[in-house]
Amino acid sequence: MKQQEPLRNISELGEFSLIEELTRDFHSDKKEIIVGIGDDAAAISLDNKTVQLISTDLLVEGVHFDPMYTPYKHLGYKAVAVNVSDICAMNGFAEYITVSLAISSKYSIEALEELYAGIKAACIQYNLELVGGDTTAAPFGLTISITVFGKVHKTDLVTRSGAKVYDLLVVSGDLGGAYMGLQVLEREKEVFKTNPEIQPDLDGFDYIIQRQLKPEARRDVVGILKELKVTPTSMIDISDGLASEILHLCKSSNVGCHVYGEKIPMDTQTVQTSIDFNIDPTTAALNGGEDYELLFTIQQKDLEIIQSNPNFTIIGHMTDEKDGIYHIDKQGAAVTLKAQGWKHFN
Amino acid sequence: MKQQEPLRNISELGEFSLIEELTRDFHSDKKEIIVGIGDDAAAISLDNKTVQLISTDLLVEGVHFDPMYTPYKHLGYKAVAVNVSDICAMNGFAEYITVSLAISSKYSIEALEELYAGIKAACIQYNLELVGGDTTAAPFGLTISITVFGKVHKTDLVTRSGAKVYDLLVVSGDLGGAYMGLQVLEREKEVFKTNPEIQPDLDGFDYIIQRQLKPEARRDVVGILKELKVTPTSMIDISDGLASEILHLCKSSNVGCHVYGEKIPMDTQTVQTSIDFNIDPTTAALNGGEDYELLFTIQQKDLEIIQSNPNFTIIGHMTDEKDGIYHIDKQGAAVTLKAQGWKHFN
Repeated sequence: MKQQEPLRNISELGEFSLIEELTRDFHSDKKEIIVGIGDDAAAISLDNKTVQLISTDLLVEGVHFDPMYTPYKHLGYKAVAVNVSDICAMNGFAEYITVSLAISSKYSIEALEELYAGIKAACIQYNLELVGGDTTAAPFGLTISITVFGKVHKTDLVTRSGAKVYDLLVVSGDLGGAYMGLQVLEREKEVFKTNPEIQPDLDGFDYIIQRQLKPEARRDVVGILKELKVTPTSMIDISDGLASEILHLCKSSNVGCHVYGEKIPMDTQTVQTSIDFNIDPTTAALNGGEDYELLFTIQQKDLEIIQSNPNFTIIGHMTDEKDGIYHIDKQGAAVTLKAQGWKHFN
Repeated sequence: MKQQEPLRNISELGEFSLIEELTRDFHSDKKEIIVGIGDDAAAISLDNKTVQLISTDLLVEGVHFDPMYTPYKHLGYKAVAVNVSDICAMNGFAEYITVSLAISSKYSIEALEELYAGIKAACIQYNLELVGGDTTAAPFGLTISITVFGKVHKTDLVTRSGAKVYDLLVVSGDLGGAYMGLQVLEREKEVFKTNPEIQPDLDGFDYIIQRQLKPEARRDVVGILKELKVTPTSMIDISDGLASEILHLCKSSNVGCHVYGEKIPMDTQTVQTSIDFNIDPTTAALNGGEDYELLFTIQQKDLEIIQSNPNFTIIGHMTDEKDGIYHIDKQGAAVTLKAQGWKHFN
């Protein structure tokens, strides 16, 4: 008798491999589907000119947020913003969302009203309409599922897979702040657990705490690129950390990359807090995640336009796939880039 | 000092009132939105002729399914089918889905592969393409969030709100089966818990168990109505029970209703099992839920076409709103119709 194979636990695979393994049989040759599973959003042709973008994200209590230091209004806002960010990453504009909640009975109506106040604030900020959803009981915690729909002109659509050798690697805004904000919040939570009488000390951390609790989708960047007449060759939003996103771009585009650690833009509060926490600032920026900035590649011809714009920083360039993917440090040493982003399943 | 009001628990409100309360401020006057929150699906104008339909549903372990008697493949199939059913209820055809999972580490990869095998079977059955999703860890159980997108010609769109006085109330297929299937499964679960040696006795219950574990969306009905050139004046799918859905139609359309208990179509296995379980068959049909048949209203002129079609049964007619909503029993007595469907929050 053949012995049965033991069942494999999902922690054996990371999030990305798990999705890949489960959806392997699903690839379609339907011509309307320009981009299916595996980008920030799906892209479906509506007509000759217009492409619909669809993206969906789950936020789970205890995995993506800690109610102990996350105000519900901020949570609602962030839940919408991170979805809008996926549409921005395709160079498009979000238009509609659906919001579904699975809620345990410990939640009060007032908490949910706060959550929806945050959702509404984000709808106003990003010019979105809430068109549907589902609300149900759950035995545990709170799970928020948001799906966002947007549009982009066919000629403006940017995916993860268009980067070419010699293209320049660009990032919007600054990085590492959301991660350092999380470190501060986690520290104050530990202090509070030890002595609930002590008020949290968040003075001087306002920027990085806002980066963690109320991130913005870079919808403005999509508008700026349009005005500058620059169409990125590839783009992704930074949710899991710069390193992880660079690896995604390279894998989808079949290219290598040199990223220069020294060039990664960081706010002084992020740098100072990193040093105080004994964390290398570049490590925070490379692996921190949740900054929701846009990472994209441009052709060499667009160098000057992008270089002279204060919203953007050029941090590297794309190379031949065979050359590999490297982080070049201050001393000029090349280290193979590894993703050490969020690993929820471990 | 003013005393603070105690927080209100969500169980104070039912699912429908909760959604209404939370989304009260969200109503939009954007002209593209034909139907927003509060129908089976949102309906958004794409151009002069075509309307996009969007619907989303959450399935939560311990609330919507019990892994003890729900094979994962069936669960995946059902999760898709119930979403497709919402698109059918708008008289449209589903085209694309996104599937998101929040999974606790107790799940094996093999269980998830089974789940996706069921999702794939449903995609083939309903001619759908999976275009995206999100997969994440969860501290507890399994939550499945599916969003489905479809299309309908503008002139074919049917909502909950078009029923008129004298319209006839029609249902597809037969009712009460899914509920009685659940009763059998729950009984066998109790037997198993008492003595795991006893094999479950499901002989003779195959139809109603299939109605519970592997319901079908009535996509075929949408096609049949198109062939018959009958456009319902209003429509809804039966997920929470016939009584609850009649109340929704009446509320949205501002009409009353007489529904005749004796006319509600039921399979003989459903009736026999109801009697064996000491449940009034009409009660099972009115309040059972999860049959995913379509409930719709037609104009009097379509009476003969619908009456002569074996897929449909006329079970009542719409009245003036002031006349109220009544269940007329065998003896001709009129009882005010009340929804006793699923109340997840209690």
